[in-house]
Amino acid sequence: MSTAVDILQQYGLADLTMRRLARALDVAPGALYWHFPNKQALLGGIAESILTAVPAHPGSAADYCSFLFDALTSLRDGADITLAAVASGTLDRDLAEEVSAELSAELGAEHSEEHSALDGAKLLLRFVFGSVLELQARQSVAVNLGASVGEQKQDKDQEQGVPSEACARQEVVLGVETILRGLSR
Amino acid sequence: MSTAVDILQQYGLADLTMRRLARALDVAPGALYWHFPNKQALLGGIAESILTAVPAHPGSAADYCSFLFDALTSLRDGADITLAAVASGTLDRDLAEEVSAELSAELGAEHSEEHSALDGAKLLLRFVFGSVLELQARQSVAVNLGASVGEQKQDKDQEQGVPSEACARQEVVLGVETILRGLSR
Repeated sequence: MSTAVDILQQYGLADLTMRRLARALDVAPGALYWHFPNKQALLGGIAESILTAVPAHPGSAADYCSFLFDALTSLRDGADITLAAVASGTLDRDLAEEVSAELSAELGAEHSEEHSALDGAKLLLRFVFGSVLELQARQSVAVNLGASVGEQKQDKDQEQGVPSEACARQEVVLGVETILRGLSR
Repeated sequence: MSTAVDILQQYGLADLTMRRLARALDVAPGALYWHFPNKQALLGGIAESILTAVPAHPGSAADYCSFLFDALTSLRDGADITLAAVASGTLDRDLAEEVSAELSAELGAEHSEEHSALDGAKLLLRFVFGSVLELQARQSVAVNLGASVGEQKQDKDQEQGVPSEACARQEVVLGVETILRGLSR
């Protein structure tokens, strides 16, 4: 698994093929397929691995979203990989159920008719994923530009207006607060 | 451009290469590169094209988000393509500025200190993109599964729990309303 993560950090999701991973691991492709029957299963394994940093019940939906932001940004294309794992059902955890449990406790019973906690949880998750997907799309463009002209990544980041992860994190935290205000009415 | 859109509908973003497009158009790759110097420029052109269905000033931020949802879902991988175009700066329109102008008019001056309209606009856009990216990731999984086992797409959609676009659209509209409630406090 750590070799797959190394390849991802260096080349990105598009270049993580089963063939390349088998070569990097110096195993026959068949041996790799024995562990992961296809790329979706492999991505599911990687997503599970980065999500271990997100506790299922951190105490509030806002905290959950902060942990999730940190986990998704801990790996290049982390949001894309995790979304693919969610979509293909290769993730054992149900993120929406976890956030929903936090929200139910926070919002209390009086809001349960107006807003289902599960709907609110999906809303929060789509915002966090949308935010990190945008950030990582910008980072990916900067990396590709940097690679093609041989300039330093930092300069390119600034030139292309890639926000720092600290700024992006702050925007996500404030956005989650705004959504929670809307949910709590 | 319409040939590129045909290839996208049939094969998806991963298989839209400049080479395949040139072959489909029956032109030399050099002729294609004269129009679009690289794939990012091509994706920018496609994104511009699907976004013509979104008026810059439809009258409210909620209406803008509805038009955007329809535009992004009008093409396979439409959200991925448009996000790539935004990230690489190949889109002439500034979606965040457009939504921000709608929000400023709606929220009025009394909210301008607490929330910048531009921050609110980015929040709404990230939610809409996150929603459509998730929907299209699920659709993509269903298409790939359907292709590999030769079953009908409709059956696979249901089996994999892919929401209909009508349901997804309704969730986005309700989510935008929730966010606007949070922004208007």
